[in-house]
Amino acid sequence: MTITIATFPWVPDVAHGQVRDLRPRWALEEAGLPYEVHLVTPETKDSSYRGWQPFGQVPAYRDDTVEMFESGAMLLHIADQSDALAPRDAQERAQTQAWVLAAMNSVEPQVMNVILPGVFFPGEDWVAGWRPHAEALAAARLRSLAAWLDGKEWLVGDRFGVADILMATVLRGLAGKPLLTAHPVLVAYLERCLARPAFGRALQAQLDLFQSNAPAEAEVAQG
Amino acid sequence: MTITIATFPWVPDVAHGQVRDLRPRWALEEAGLPYEVHLVTPETKDSSYRGWQPFGQVPAYRDDTVEMFESGAMLLHIADQSDALAPRDAQERAQTQAWVLAAMNSVEPQVMNVILPGVFFPGEDWVAGWRPHAEALAAARLRSLAAWLDGKEWLVGDRFGVADILMATVLRGLAGKPLLTAHPVLVAYLERCLARPAFGRALQAQLDLFQSNAPAEAEVAQG
Repeated sequence: MTITIATFPWVPDVAHGQVRDLRPRWALEEAGLPYEVHLVTPETKDSSYRGWQPFGQVPAYRDDTVEMFESGAMLLHIADQSDALAPRDAQERAQTQAWVLAAMNSVEPQVMNVILPGVFFPGEDWVAGWRPHAEALAAARLRSLAAWLDGKEWLVGDRFGVADILMATVLRGLAGKPLLTAHPVLVAYLERCLARPAFGRALQAQLDLFQSNAPAEAEVAQG
Repeated sequence: MTITIATFPWVPDVAHGQVRDLRPRWALEEAGLPYEVHLVTPETKDSSYRGWQPFGQVPAYRDDTVEMFESGAMLLHIADQSDALAPRDAQERAQTQAWVLAAMNSVEPQVMNVILPGVFFPGEDWVAGWRPHAEALAAARLRSLAAWLDGKEWLVGDRFGVADILMATVLRGLAGKPLLTAHPVLVAYLERCLARPAFGRALQAQLDLFQSNAPAEAEVAQG
């Protein structure tokens, strides 16, 4: 089976290691499934690519049978292609779906609301007014998550799975921040996830790609 | 098969018709699957219920085989129990997963960021500074969605499905607002979704429940 992941050839340094193609890369490394990379350029991003990824973002995914977008959806699909990641019964499947959606709908939006204003709108007056609300909303979700993970190794059953990949990439955005370090359970869980060799290989593959396509310094200065 | 949906017996008027148990109710009406309602009270919400819904929210779902939470995940599960909603091949399954995740991760968080500050933090100074950014982010997602739906009846293939239920309940939060009415394609799509008899039955069931559990006026005044 030929699997292709679409991503950008290069992004600014601040996004290195953060672009979401990291998620299917990680899942495919866990599954032991090789993949190719399709590079999305500014020229293709807004035309034909939208038939594959309607929001013009990355990643997108294709194999011999399906074509799809949304990293959370890809991971549900990849799990089913893999003995290592596939749910073993109906309840494990339902819980995997639940925790994939929880990572993407209940936790990530709250985490993004904490992180993004400082990244995209630094220095704007309103950010100081919004931040305490955003942090309180995120803190409530993290408390619930920490309570669930207390005494557990992974989110679903007794085995690492695709929901853990998604949750770890979300929590990683808060690494070292008090919102996360307030919960030793979550710090330990994140460390456990990121210590997996498959994560290391996926991260390195993303970093290597951006490094190999880095523009010359003069170009960056002009951009 | 006995299907149970957990929800609150009553919520304040502003949330009538908005509580997310509407989503599995709608899907089960489309599927022709009967269900029972389990009422989550303040007493149960923070203790044993968290083993079923780790964030203490509604809805939660249970049938003879599985127990789960997250409305997006429930709808993927319900689709598989139903001839009317089940994806017919691998590509339709992958696209359904993609659009379920798109509704929950790419569109809903942006829509919520537009709606919620005015609901929860009315009159706070920072809201005026944040609103144009939130609207611009939501507008970009809606433009992409309108482009995808242009010339299409439903999100996936030629058949109404669970991704449409989720997307319609998200877009409904913007009904009548310029962000939505700027796109006749989306207005027509939303009308098409909400005209389905199954939606009407689901909405009425939620409204009837809240009506039947409405506190007496004196209690509300005291609360």
